[in-house]
Amino acid sequence: MITVTTLTELRQARVSLVEPVGLVPTMGYLHEGHLSLVRQARQECASVIASIFVNPTQFGPHEDLRSYPRDLPRDLYLLANEGVDLVWTPSVDIMYPAGFQTWVTVEEVTSRLEGSQRPGHFRGVATIVAKLFNATVPHKAYFGQKDAQQAVVIRRMVQDLNIPVQIVVCPIVREADGLAMSSRNVYLSTAERQAAPLLYRALQAAQDAYNEGERSAERLRQIMQSVLAETNLAQPQYVSCADPETLQELDWVNERALLSLAVYFGKTRLIDNLLLPEQE
Amino acid sequence: MITVTTLTELRQARVSLVEPVGLVPTMGYLHEGHLSLVRQARQECASVIASIFVNPTQFGPHEDLRSYPRDLPRDLYLLANEGVDLVWTPSVDIMYPAGFQTWVTVEEVTSRLEGSQRPGHFRGVATIVAKLFNATVPHKAYFGQKDAQQAVVIRRMVQDLNIPVQIVVCPIVREADGLAMSSRNVYLSTAERQAAPLLYRALQAAQDAYNEGERSAERLRQIMQSVLAETNLAQPQYVSCADPETLQELDWVNERALLSLAVYFGKTRLIDNLLLPEQE
Repeated sequence: MITVTTLTELRQARVSLVEPVGLVPTMGYLHEGHLSLVRQARQECASVIASIFVNPTQFGPHEDLRSYPRDLPRDLYLLANEGVDLVWTPSVDIMYPAGFQTWVTVEEVTSRLEGSQRPGHFRGVATIVAKLFNATVPHKAYFGQKDAQQAVVIRRMVQDLNIPVQIVVCPIVREADGLAMSSRNVYLSTAERQAAPLLYRALQAAQDAYNEGERSAERLRQIMQSVLAETNLAQPQYVSCADPETLQELDWVNERALLSLAVYFGKTRLIDNLLLPEQE
Repeated sequence: MITVTTLTELRQARVSLVEPVGLVPTMGYLHEGHLSLVRQARQECASVIASIFVNPTQFGPHEDLRSYPRDLPRDLYLLANEGVDLVWTPSVDIMYPAGFQTWVTVEEVTSRLEGSQRPGHFRGVATIVAKLFNATVPHKAYFGQKDAQQAVVIRRMVQDLNIPVQIVVCPIVREADGLAMSSRNVYLSTAERQAAPLLYRALQAAQDAYNEGERSAERLRQIMQSVLAETNLAQPQYVSCADPETLQELDWVNERALLSLAVYFGKTRLIDNLLLPEQE
């Protein structure tokens, strides 16, 4: 496995990779969710690039950029173990040198859900992902369904800007008790960690109602809210039943729907989601 | 020469081009300025793509989108004559389909000169050029020094977003009397056309003063203003002596400077520029 830092090193190493090339962009502190992306890329592509970069421009001024967990030696060990060919670990100065002033913005689909709670977040995401694509020139790029809106935003950007890459979105990987894997789970206290599977239970309760014929989006949102109300450790920020592409809140679930929610446990913000009807 | 319209046709045709590939993006109604870009591309690249697209998003609501001159048959004849391999003539619906919502914005360098007079212009330019690059995947792309700020904006975008393309900026091509070639010159009345070489004379007067030792940017701007004042057909919009990279107005010309100006002749807006010291 080759590990590179500068753009020049990356471009040199990229030339010698057998194509097609798959890219797995990450912020490091890898868990089974990330590794499932790597495995899918490994199956579908002749070469796999992983990037590790905690992107400052997607964090708000009061968010957890400084405390975001990092463990590069462990990450490199895990990636080598999965047969990754090339790891790119650029510095902030490499990605955002003095004079940097170009941004990619996706408009409508970023105005809702995470976008409405985290102003500027998706501008940072779209910009860094465009840079990662341009720098690594992958044929396929792998993202987790965990960040459902991010996947929608990136697909939209790729389509709108004609970026020649295929976006692959992989299913959420969960702990045994249903909690969606996230690098931020380490922030949780023992009590919070015990309560956190509530997010998935809320989604499942709405899914059960849907499977029994409930089609009122408002009723599905209420069902999720009532599960989240079971403990005062959970402070819901939003609960949504929306169109999976436009992310507009639905009145009725006619075809597909994205159930999603964001919940604070103390200072830790967790998100989770589920697509209706269930995917194969 | 192959002519294609859809993105699918383009991608198919692109695959069979011998590399390296040069791209000459145009809005059509070609003149010798465009053809000089094609010739340079022809010299430096194994294959040459030209695009013809009058990009609506770079025109302001009161600008000349509707009346912008068009002559596709003549353009295709001229491009075939220069040995272009592939011409892409997408429609507005192909470039901006329903639901389009992603924009590339370059910030500081677009706040001045053309950008300050034409709000949104460079957002449209950066977005369409990013799309053209992603769709055609060129090794080199050719732009005219005539649109000096555009060249700065595109170079900045390419650097900031790590787009793997080399930007080549070619010298301004002028009529015998010094008027910079422009598709918009056809708008000029006979009297306006006769007066229009004034722009280049203003630039030359400032250049002469510079060559004689003048280093006050304000004095160079005054010299240009005073030449433009020779006829009341010319209504200057701005006259600038700026840093060629940041485009900030200079107090003193220590190293290089970009002299530039925008002048209305009736409803026709002309621009021109000159780099100090003179380029080889």
